[in-house]
Amino acid sequence: MIPTHAPLRILRNEGLDILDQTALPLREDRLVLRDLASVCDAIRALRVRGAPLLGLCGAGGMAVAAHELGSSERALRDAAGALKATRPTAVDLGRAVDAALGAAMQAPEASRSEALWSFAEAMLGEQVACDEALASHGAPLLTGDVLTHCNTGALATGGLGTALAVIIEAHRRGSVGLCYATETRPLLQGARLTMWELARASVPGALLPDTAAASLVASGRVSAVITGADRIAANGDTANKIGTFGLALAAARAGIPFYIAAPMTTVDLDCPRGSAIPIEFRDATEVGGFAGVRWTVEGADAYNPAFDVTPADLVKAIITERGVARPPYTDSLPALAGS
Amino acid sequence: MIPTHAPLRILRNEGLDILDQTALPLREDRLVLRDLASVCDAIRALRVRGAPLLGLCGAGGMAVAAHELGSSERALRDAAGALKATRPTAVDLGRAVDAALGAAMQAPEASRSEALWSFAEAMLGEQVACDEALASHGAPLLTGDVLTHCNTGALATGGLGTALAVIIEAHRRGSVGLCYATETRPLLQGARLTMWELARASVPGALLPDTAAASLVASGRVSAVITGADRIAANGDTANKIGTFGLALAAARAGIPFYIAAPMTTVDLDCPRGSAIPIEFRDATEVGGFAGVRWTVEGADAYNPAFDVTPADLVKAIITERGVARPPYTDSLPALAGS
Repeated sequence: MIPTHAPLRILRNEGLDILDQTALPLREDRLVLRDLASVCDAIRALRVRGAPLLGLCGAGGMAVAAHELGSSERALRDAAGALKATRPTAVDLGRAVDAALGAAMQAPEASRSEALWSFAEAMLGEQVACDEALASHGAPLLTGDVLTHCNTGALATGGLGTALAVIIEAHRRGSVGLCYATETRPLLQGARLTMWELARASVPGALLPDTAAASLVASGRVSAVITGADRIAANGDTANKIGTFGLALAAARAGIPFYIAAPMTTVDLDCPRGSAIPIEFRDATEVGGFAGVRWTVEGADAYNPAFDVTPADLVKAIITERGVARPPYTDSLPALAGS
Repeated sequence: MIPTHAPLRILRNEGLDILDQTALPLREDRLVLRDLASVCDAIRALRVRGAPLLGLCGAGGMAVAAHELGSSERALRDAAGALKATRPTAVDLGRAVDAALGAAMQAPEASRSEALWSFAEAMLGEQVACDEALASHGAPLLTGDVLTHCNTGALATGGLGTALAVIIEAHRRGSVGLCYATETRPLLQGARLTMWELARASVPGALLPDTAAASLVASGRVSAVITGADRIAANGDTANKIGTFGLALAAARAGIPFYIAAPMTTVDLDCPRGSAIPIEFRDATEVGGFAGVRWTVEGADAYNPAFDVTPADLVKAIITERGVARPPYTDSLPALAGS
């Protein structure tokens, strides 16, 4: 089912009902986007974020555009261009917009609007089903209290989420108690979004500074660490939000499992190992401040990679919607991909 | 020599000239404290912090009180009580105030004020000499670019500092290039204080989110990690600012040395191992926000230990003012203590 705090609902022939993620966790503002310009503005302003959710908004945005502007090829191609231009580097967004456009062009012009609404609804349904399957495969692996990093809930995928969906499902089954969440500097997705999603799901949560993660794991308070992934190489090396690698090192030292939960679309069998994954470096101004408050010297240089790579030997298992891959990943990942 | 940005200067027969650390790094405000109430206010408001520096302020505060209020036993005992009450758990503060009081009471009443100024000056001189010796012992161990955590410079000790003094001395000798500094959540001493001290010492600095430390170390960009210590057990297990343990794990994985730099007063030979060191837990409100800005759900629970314990097997060497201790620490630490 779609969670009550769904970041996106599709209102057929009306618009997209979104949760404004920039207002979280202090306010829960919902907006209904009824025209293309509003959808583009919401994406640009990061009111919606997370790769799968951006894809859903792109597909939904095409339906909104057809409803508003008509379904001529010209109108739909212009709308696709406008949506893709909002965040040019968001691969899922561009792919979903192109797929929606392709689906619309298969239909006669009078049916294209209906086709686009149906396409967006189906895409959302598939996302929810994928996340449900992933959560079901992962939930049996977790017991006791657990630690997670960044945000991997419904707010990230538009469905149920990945690692956080596993935790919530395991809590629903009674096997997980408390979920510890890192703040996740510099953008603080753990503090802002995961803590809010835990509260909404009635899962007890506790926030920690990123500095406290290794100490928490060593203390014996958690029985597992589980995170999402941005890209998984064929050998199991995993790129994910900066800070993940440190959590995996702490888990290995303490002898507790470190799990990755991610959809099969994240597995890149053409990428042999982690060293082949390019790492994005972000602006220095994200470090040394937040939300307009600065706490370091003016003009400070910064080291600010968006992701790190956790070597496969630290990963106990990779949880996907098709099942759980275990080492050696060079065997188990292709087997899941072909299943 | 005393650095130009000394957090405390003793102005004999006048007062204490302090750098207001709460205004850093945005403003460099100096205040001259000319009466006991001002000294007490400055300590309470955290304008001065760091255990050794608080000790110096306590001793200096006794001199200020004698100058202002006279040197009767009654006046001096009242002043000692007022100073110790500002931060009742600060061991160095209480010890220094009591030592200053003891020194004053050895002198006839007419000479007590002079005795107290001399006591505070001598204490500051000893701190600088201790830190100079420590920096000289440690500097030969560092080459290339290094990573540090929290603040361990002059601002912390009132002299030259510990780990940061080693880095600055190694840079002065031409062997260290760039110093990477963690933000050090939750109180951000790395971002606020270390980056400022590096700039003042003309050492190139780069700030990183705490989450990026393991990735930085794995990248090969740094050749060593060096931090201070709050307490070192007889076996070399070391309690230090939360986050230190994670840096030590990253260094071990990358095969680069992790060093501790701390004065012999930090070594507690009566404490057999790290598990015997009590860990202070701090208020939940320090997590999920800073400087009045909140970024998590209201009333969020938090896991907020002030320190973690780095096991001795991860510590390559412990640098003190008496020399460098190497494993096994159960031999090398008593040898240094007895030297």
